[in-house]
Amino acid sequence: MVECSHHRQGGLVLLDGGFESGCESGRVRLVGAGPGDPDLLTIKAARALGEADVVVYDRLTPEPILALARPNARLLYVGKRKARHALPQDDINALLVGLAREGFDVVRLKGGDPFVFGRGGEELAACRAAGVPCEVIPGISAGLAAAAAVGAPVTHRGVAQAVTFVTGHAAPVAGGEEPGEPALDWAALAKPNHTVVVYMGLSTAPVIAARLIAAGRSPGTPVVLVENASLPNERRLAAALGTLGEAAKMLEAPTVLVIGEVAAMADTTAVRPCRRGDDQPTAATGA
Amino acid sequence: MVECSHHRQGGLVLLDGGFESGCESGRVRLVGAGPGDPDLLTIKAARALGEADVVVYDRLTPEPILALARPNARLLYVGKRKARHALPQDDINALLVGLAREGFDVVRLKGGDPFVFGRGGEELAACRAAGVPCEVIPGISAGLAAAAAVGAPVTHRGVAQAVTFVTGHAAPVAGGEEPGEPALDWAALAKPNHTVVVYMGLSTAPVIAARLIAAGRSPGTPVVLVENASLPNERRLAAALGTLGEAAKMLEAPTVLVIGEVAAMADTTAVRPCRRGDDQPTAATGA
Repeated sequence: MVECSHHRQGGLVLLDGGFESGCESGRVRLVGAGPGDPDLLTIKAARALGEADVVVYDRLTPEPILALARPNARLLYVGKRKARHALPQDDINALLVGLAREGFDVVRLKGGDPFVFGRGGEELAACRAAGVPCEVIPGISAGLAAAAAVGAPVTHRGVAQAVTFVTGHAAPVAGGEEPGEPALDWAALAKPNHTVVVYMGLSTAPVIAARLIAAGRSPGTPVVLVENASLPNERRLAAALGTLGEAAKMLEAPTVLVIGEVAAMADTTAVRPCRRGDDQPTAATGA
Repeated sequence: MVECSHHRQGGLVLLDGGFESGCESGRVRLVGAGPGDPDLLTIKAARALGEADVVVYDRLTPEPILALARPNARLLYVGKRKARHALPQDDINALLVGLAREGFDVVRLKGGDPFVFGRGGEELAACRAAGVPCEVIPGISAGLAAAAAVGAPVTHRGVAQAVTFVTGHAAPVAGGEEPGEPALDWAALAKPNHTVVVYMGLSTAPVIAARLIAAGRSPGTPVVLVENASLPNERRLAAALGTLGEAAKMLEAPTVLVIGEVAAMADTTAVRPCRRGDDQPTAATGA
């Protein structure tokens, strides 16, 4: 990328709902923000944040991470809420492309890793289609942060030879299961010696547990639930597949489920009492 | 952990093949070193490296990462070579426990993430059994670094709803397949709309491809191979499942295989000619 002195000397001015055009050498970097702890950003991600003209971020981005942006960088909130999209994905794609075309150095912050249930692939594809340079900077995915936090290795010699990452909110296959049920390959996920890490699966935990048990996975299979992995308000809960539905009611999103024999290794002694409604907010909400 | 002034003021003296005992408050941190680029360390990992009295590392740890240790830190090489273990895992476990019991602040560097095919679980278990405080600091796993480098999202709306990480070197199930063949659930891995990321699978690539095709995955399924992801000598190769065996012969370890429809999104234009034997070494080998 050609160095753009306009950027480096600051000066981002909002004009009529748009941005003052800089130069024609803009770019987009899709940056993994990690699980929430700013110390779990990569050095490369932190540097990109400090260089950006514009930072486009979502609902769960903690303030201390946004604080790494330059003082005169523009922070744009495009977060999604459940059943209420602040900005549809197509509009986010168009925003990123538009900003880069105006010459801005754009960082698109994605929770965890941009390519693990982050829809980063769609933003990358939009940039490529528009001829906008786009780099992907990986991040610590929430599932791996949760595993590290509780000490449950997602792979472990003789116990788990493979690990699969799925989302509890996967869109149903057309003409298939009823809406709201994740369209997953339950038979494959039910195999032993295999860890299943579920993102966004708190509300569908009862059906996930029921389907896995019906497909043959033992109701005694250990599960560890980790809410807000890596953050000061992290909470941990040990359960089994047979009690997962009940356990899930005690936590709130964002929570990762680690299902499999390795979950028995999880240290949940740091679990704090489950109190609803009195947690300190740690995530930016667009304010 | 109690602050140990002996550590903080330096002074690590090798005596009679052992270390001078510091205080009784040692600890072990299992630290993900990421894929190789020092900028892909997390901030927390880099800080831990700079604090450690002793850094225990493996064969593929790049020198620029080791250079983040304190000048007077002791660097211990325990790397494994194929079919020639420099130090058996049990001895590594005992070494970590012993050093911590002597009061040292120990960083055990693990390539990628400690819990993704890193045997970190075994080291954590050994520390717990010995009553040694042990913290896990996650890292960017090689598979996710490879995906980010080439722009192939491991999950992608409508294309890949799940991703499974496996190792091509998994031990055969007792009484099962012949030695040297990874004991994987081919039927599960052969499902469409599912990305398979294979670690350490270069030498077994032909059998992996054959088994997946036999289990029903199309020979036309895209694959991208990424050697030394994130390093200056990174190489990329696009293939299909039907040609994976041939493609694998053109690269050297460490190489990650990303198998699935998303691999078609990979940008392999940065592939450098495959030259054998004249790559600059970038990894420490215990010297």
